[in-house]
Amino acid sequence: MLRTSLAVSLSAISSINAAADEGMWLPNALPLAQMKAAYGFEPSAGWADHLQRSAVRFSTGGSGSLVSAQGLVMTNHHVGSDMLAKLSTPTRDLLETGFLARSRADELPCPDLELDVLWSIEDVTARIEKAGNEATDLAKAGAARRAAIAAIEDAATKATGLKCEVVTLYQGGRYHLYSYKTYRDVRLVFAPETAIAFFGGDTDNFEFPRFALDCCFFRIYENGKPLAPDHFLRWDVASSGNNPDGANGAQEGELVFTWGHPGSTNRLYTAEHVQHMRDVEEPMRLKRLWRSEVKLATFMGRSAENSRIAREDFFGVQNGRKSTQGLLDALQDPALIREKLAHDAEIARKLKGTEAGERFERGRRKIVQSLDAWNKLAPNYFAFERWRAGDLAGLARTAIRIVSESEKPSDQRLAEYSDGNRASLESFFYSPAPIQPDLEIERLSSWLASLAEERGLDHPAVQKLLDGKSPRARASEIVRGTRLAEVDVRRTFAQMTKNDLTNATDPMIQFAMLCDGEARAVRTAWENEVESLQESGYADVAAAHFAAFGESVYPDATFTLRMSYGVVAGWTTDEGAKVPAFTTIGGTFTRAEARAGDPAFALPKSWLDARARLDASVPFNFVSTNDIIGGNSGSPIVDRDGDIVGLIFDGNLDSLAGDVIYDGTRNRATSVDARGMLHAMRVVYGANELVDEMHNSTAKPITP
Amino acid sequence: MLRTSLAVSLSAISSINAAADEGMWLPNALPLAQMKAAYGFEPSAGWADHLQRSAVRFSTGGSGSLVSAQGLVMTNHHVGSDMLAKLSTPTRDLLETGFLARSRADELPCPDLELDVLWSIEDVTARIEKAGNEATDLAKAGAARRAAIAAIEDAATKATGLKCEVVTLYQGGRYHLYSYKTYRDVRLVFAPETAIAFFGGDTDNFEFPRFALDCCFFRIYENGKPLAPDHFLRWDVASSGNNPDGANGAQEGELVFTWGHPGSTNRLYTAEHVQHMRDVEEPMRLKRLWRSEVKLATFMGRSAENSRIAREDFFGVQNGRKSTQGLLDALQDPALIREKLAHDAEIARKLKGTEAGERFERGRRKIVQSLDAWNKLAPNYFAFERWRAGDLAGLARTAIRIVSESEKPSDQRLAEYSDGNRASLESFFYSPAPIQPDLEIERLSSWLASLAEERGLDHPAVQKLLDGKSPRARASEIVRGTRLAEVDVRRTFAQMTKNDLTNATDPMIQFAMLCDGEARAVRTAWENEVESLQESGYADVAAAHFAAFGESVYPDATFTLRMSYGVVAGWTTDEGAKVPAFTTIGGTFTRAEARAGDPAFALPKSWLDARARLDASVPFNFVSTNDIIGGNSGSPIVDRDGDIVGLIFDGNLDSLAGDVIYDGTRNRATSVDARGMLHAMRVVYGANELVDEMHNSTAKPITP
Repeated sequence: MLRTSLAVSLSAISSINAAADEGMWLPNALPLAQMKAAYGFEPSAGWADHLQRSAVRFSTGGSGSLVSAQGLVMTNHHVGSDMLAKLSTPTRDLLETGFLARSRADELPCPDLELDVLWSIEDVTARIEKAGNEATDLAKAGAARRAAIAAIEDAATKATGLKCEVVTLYQGGRYHLYSYKTYRDVRLVFAPETAIAFFGGDTDNFEFPRFALDCCFFRIYENGKPLAPDHFLRWDVASSGNNPDGANGAQEGELVFTWGHPGSTNRLYTAEHVQHMRDVEEPMRLKRLWRSEVKLATFMGRSAENSRIAREDFFGVQNGRKSTQGLLDALQDPALIREKLAHDAEIARKLKGTEAGERFERGRRKIVQSLDAWNKLAPNYFAFERWRAGDLAGLARTAIRIVSESEKPSDQRLAEYSDGNRASLESFFYSPAPIQPDLEIERLSSWLASLAEERGLDHPAVQKLLDGKSPRARASEIVRGTRLAEVDVRRTFAQMTKNDLTNATDPMIQFAMLCDGEARAVRTAWENEVESLQESGYADVAAAHFAAFGESVYPDATFTLRMSYGVVAGWTTDEGAKVPAFTTIGGTFTRAEARAGDPAFALPKSWLDARARLDASVPFNFVSTNDIIGGNSGSPIVDRDGDIVGLIFDGNLDSLAGDVIYDGTRNRATSVDARGMLHAMRVVYGANELVDEMHNSTAKPITP
Repeated sequence: MLRTSLAVSLSAISSINAAADEGMWLPNALPLAQMKAAYGFEPSAGWADHLQRSAVRFSTGGSGSLVSAQGLVMTNHHVGSDMLAKLSTPTRDLLETGFLARSRADELPCPDLELDVLWSIEDVTARIEKAGNEATDLAKAGAARRAAIAAIEDAATKATGLKCEVVTLYQGGRYHLYSYKTYRDVRLVFAPETAIAFFGGDTDNFEFPRFALDCCFFRIYENGKPLAPDHFLRWDVASSGNNPDGANGAQEGELVFTWGHPGSTNRLYTAEHVQHMRDVEEPMRLKRLWRSEVKLATFMGRSAENSRIAREDFFGVQNGRKSTQGLLDALQDPALIREKLAHDAEIARKLKGTEAGERFERGRRKIVQSLDAWNKLAPNYFAFERWRAGDLAGLARTAIRIVSESEKPSDQRLAEYSDGNRASLESFFYSPAPIQPDLEIERLSSWLASLAEERGLDHPAVQKLLDGKSPRARASEIVRGTRLAEVDVRRTFAQMTKNDLTNATDPMIQFAMLCDGEARAVRTAWENEVESLQESGYADVAAAHFAAFGESVYPDATFTLRMSYGVVAGWTTDEGAKVPAFTTIGGTFTRAEARAGDPAFALPKSWLDARARLDASVPFNFVSTNDIIGGNSGSPIVDRDGDIVGLIFDGNLDSLAGDVIYDGTRNRATSVDARGMLHAMRVVYGANELVDEMHNSTAKPITP
C-alpha cells in the first residue's frame, strides 16, 4: 500500500536520466518531448492545470482527487482508514462494517484531516541560495537556508492566506514555493469494509494479481456547505459499470497518467549511500518494524477491543515492513549495487578533468562524511528526536515546544513551529480524536523497554526515565496520571509560560521534559552534521548529473504533486510466468474460495450476498508501468482526456526497488479499475446517489 | 508451553537456598526434610524409584510418563507435535485433524523419536575432577574434563548398552553418570486437534485461566511388540471422568509432585551475569525471534501448504518469543536485580575473611571475564556454530563432521560425535522424516540475509557464501541442487573419505564446508574462553553458596529428571485480582464465545458437536505452586500415592521469571486436569479403549 509515513527524507533529490516510462515529474516541468516521442501525446494547454487543481493531498500521507461538483474527494480506503479508526468506537467499528452516508447530514466530520490543493508554484531559488552563500561553513549555511525558508513561508502565508511551503528540489539547485488551498472541514461519505478494501491482507499487499476495493470517499465543506470546486475529474466509464456508452475505462496498452504525491525516493543517492542504506539504514528500520509487529500482534490478541484500537498502527507497521523488506531484498541483489557503481563511474568518466567532475568527487566525499555522522548520531536521533513513544508523549512534547519556541522569532524556530505552519500544528495539537490509554501504555512501555534493550537498564539515560520502575509500571503510571487526553488541558499547557510549564505536575509533561534536552541536542547535531552535509553534497552530485546528462531530469519525490505516465501492461516474472494486466470481480470469489480458512481472504457478507447480482467479467484491478511510490496512494489514474480510469492503491513487489531504481520491465503500479469500483458501489452497496452525483456533475471542460 | 529448545546452557548450575515450594530436585537427593516439615509427607521406600522408572524423556525436548502395562506413554500435544508434523502430508494434516489409532496396526511409527527412561545414576566426580586438576590452565582443564566425560560415557555405553551421559551438576562440584534405557520404536496412538490442544494460541500461552487439551499418547514397542514396563503410573480418577469412585483427582490445597525434565535455569547466576542476560543475551535472542516470527508468518501467509509445513517452526518461535519476553520483562523490573545484588552481598558478608569468601569473589571475577569473551565471540558463535540455516544445512554439516571426527579417538571428538552418542546421532542423521524444499529455501535465504544485515553485504565472509547472488537466489540454487534429502545419499557422504567429501559436487555439502572452518574455530574459542571460565567460576560460586547456606540445595535444571513438590492453588495478581486454581470444560465454550472471530479461539467441530454430551462442571486445567520450567512439558503431576492427577503443560506469566528466581506467591505451573482429559477422550473422541487400557492395567504396586 502506497501510503507514506510522512517521515519524508529531507535529503532526497534525484536526477538519474529517465528511460522508458520512468519519472515523477513536476507539474510545471512535464516531459513533453518524451511523451510526444514515445506516445505521440501532446497535452492541451489547460490539461496540466486542470489535473493539478483536481488533485488533493491528504495530511495522513496519501493522495486523492476531486470527483464531483459538490466537493466529493476520492482516495484509498487505506488513506482514509486513519479517519475511519478515529471515527469508530467500541460499538461502532467503521473499519469492520464500512460506512455509507445516506444524506449530507449523515456525513461524519473528521477530527483532524487536512486536504491540500496545489494553487501555485514560485521559484525562490535565488533568495535562498543567497542566504546560504553568506554563511562561513556548511552547518551555518544549512541553518541560514532554513531561516530563509521559514521567512519566505511566513510572509507568503500572511500575504495569501494559503498554506505555503518551500520545497527543496535538486537540493541546493532549486527551491520552489508551493502554495496550497487547505481544507479542514472534511467529512466521511463512503467506505467499504476493510475485508474487501484490503482483501488478501499482508499476503497480497504489494503483490499482483489483486482483488481490492481500496477506495474511500470524503466531502470537502467550506463555510458549512459542500465545496463547489472549479476543477474536478470526470469518469471515463459509464455509470453502469462495465456497460460503456462511449467511455471504456482503461485498455491494455493504453497510455495513462497519475497525478499524485509520491512521498520520497532516493534515486540520486551515490553508490556509497545506497550501500549504507543496504547495510545500515534499512536493516535498522526492519529491526524496529519486526519488533513492533510482534508486540502489536500480541497486544491485539488479548481482546477484540485491543485489536480494534491498534489495527491502524498494526497496518502501518506491516505495510512498512513489507515495503522495507522488498527494498532490502532488491538492495541485497548484487546486481543493483553493480548498476549504481557503473552509473557513478560513467559520470566520473564523462566529466573527467572538468570542474563538474571535481565537484562530483567532492560531493561523494561529503556524502561519505555525512554517513559517518549518521552512524554516530543515529542511536540518539531515532531514540529521542524521532521517538515512537505514543500520542500522549507526542502531545506533551508539542506543548513543551510550543511554549519554548514561541519565545523566538518565527524564522529561528524548529521548522514545524513557524508562524506559517501554525494552523496545521494546531489542527494536530487540538484534535478531538480519541486517545486509547491501553494502547498508549503499550506504546510508551515498548519505547522504554527498547531503550533498555539498546543501552542496558543501568544506563543513566534509561535510569532517569524509568525512575526505579519497570518499563510497564512506569508507562502505566504516566499514562494513567496525565490529563493531556483532554483538549482543554492541552490548551492550558500551550498558553503557559516556560516557567509555569516546567513546574507543572502532569506526569507526561514532566516525562517529556526529561527527554527534550537530549532530543533537541541530537536534532541540532543531525541537521548540522548529516543534513547540511548531504544537502551540500547532493547539490554537487546533482550539478554533475546535469553536466553529464543535461537538464531534462526529474527530482526525487518530495510528497509534492507529480505526474507519471505509463501504459496498462502486465509483465513477465523471473521464472517466465506472464502476469496479465487485469483481474475481474469474478476472480475475487475464486481467490476467496482458494484461500478459504485464511481470515485475510474472507469476503464480507455484503459481497457474498451480492454475488449473484455482480457481473463477474467486470475488470476489478489492473497494473500499469507508471512510476509511483508510497504517498501515491489514492492518486487518480487518468487517460489522455484527463478522465478517471482507475485509482492507484499499490505497486507490485518489483516496484519496491523504486526507492532507488526504476525498472520498466517489471515495476508496476496497481489500480482499482474505475469500472469495478462503480459496479461494486452500485450493486454491493447501493451507493447509487453517490455514483449519480459523480456522473451528473457538469465537469468544467478542459481549456483547449 | 514448556517444551525446551534443547539448547541447554552448559554453564547452568544453581544452589540458591530454597524457600517455600522452590526447587527442581535430583531423584537421588530429594528434600525429604523440607517435605516432611512443610507437608508431613514421607515417601515410602519405593516411591521415588517407581516414579523415576515411570518417567520418560522425549528427544524433542519434553517429558512424559508410562501410563499402561502395554507401553503407553502420555505427554503433551505440543511435545508430540513435531512428530505429528512429520507424519503429516499435504492431504493428511494430523495437526489439523488430530489422530486416534483404532487398533495396534493403525498406530503410526515415528521417524526419529527417542524416548529415554532413567535407569541409574552414578557419581563420577572424582574421576573427572582428577582429569581437570592435571591441566595447566582453565581452558586446558575444560578440555581435559570434556575428554574424561567422553571416555566415561563411551565405556559405560559399551559395557551396559544403555545411553550414558555425564551430567554436570554444581559445575566442577559434582558429575553424575546418568544411564538410560532408550526406545526408538515409538508409535503415535492419540492426539486431539491443535485447535483444542493449543486453544487460545499465543494469546493464552503462558497465561491463566486456560482451557487446553494439551495431551498426546504414544506407544513404545520393543522387538516389534508393545513394551511391558515394570513401572507405569496409575490414575487417581475413575474411568468415567468426574464421577470418582474413591479417586478424586487434584483438590485445592492438595500436595502434588511433578517428575519431569526441566531444561535449563540460571538461578545460580551472579548479579553481573543476570545483568548481562538482561542487557545483552535476552535482547539479542528476542531480536532473532521477532525477525523469525515475522518472516515465518509472511511465508505461511502465501499458501495453505506453506502454513502447514512451517507451523511447527512458527509455534517454536512464538513460544520462545513469549517466554523470552516474559523473562526480559521480569529482568527489566529493577526489583529483580536488587534482589540478586542483595543476595550476592549477603554471601559476601557471611563469608567475609574466609577462604570461601575469597573464592566467591574470584568466581565472580571469572564470570565477568567470561562475559567479555561472550560479547567478543557471540556474533560469530551464534551465526556459524549455532546457525539456523535449515535442516539440509544441518545434515550437510553433520555429514562433514562425521567424516572428519571419525578420524579421531572418540574422547577427542566434538562431544556429539563420540561413540557413546553414535546411535542418537544416526537416528537424527538417517531420519526418513520429510524435508520441505520451499521451507528450506526460506530458512537458508533468511540466514544468509541475516548475515548480510549484521555484517554488510560486502563483508568477505558474506561475499564468499553468496557467490555473487542474492540471498534468495543463492539459497534456491543450493536447496534445489542438493540431494541430501535422500537418506541413501546421506549414507554415501558419511562413508566417504575426507578427501572424497571435499571434492563432492553436492552444492549444500560445498556450502556447509565454506562455513565449517569458521564454525569450528569459534566453537573452540567459545569452549575455552566462555564455557571453561564459567565452569570454573561457578564452581567457586557454588562452593561459596554451600559454605554460606549449607549443602541442602538443588542444582540448576539440566534437562535431566527432577522432582518438584507444591500445592494446587490460585494466586492474587498485582492488581489484587484473585485467580482461581481450576477451570472447567464448560468454561472452554464460554471463552470461545467471548473471543468469537479470533481463529486462535475457534473450537474444533468435534467439540462443538459434543457440547451437549460433555459435563460442563468437570475440571479442565489447574495451577499449582510446583517449580518447573521449559522441558517439563508433558511431566505427570501426581499425588502422594504417585497416582496421576494431571499433566503439566504450561506455566503462568509469572513463572517466566523462573529462569532466574522462584516466587512462590505468583509462580504457577499449569496442568491438564486428569478428570477433564479422560472425560474429553471418552466423550469427544470416543477413545474408550485407550482409557480402558489405562484403567484396566494392573499397576505394579509401590513397594511399601
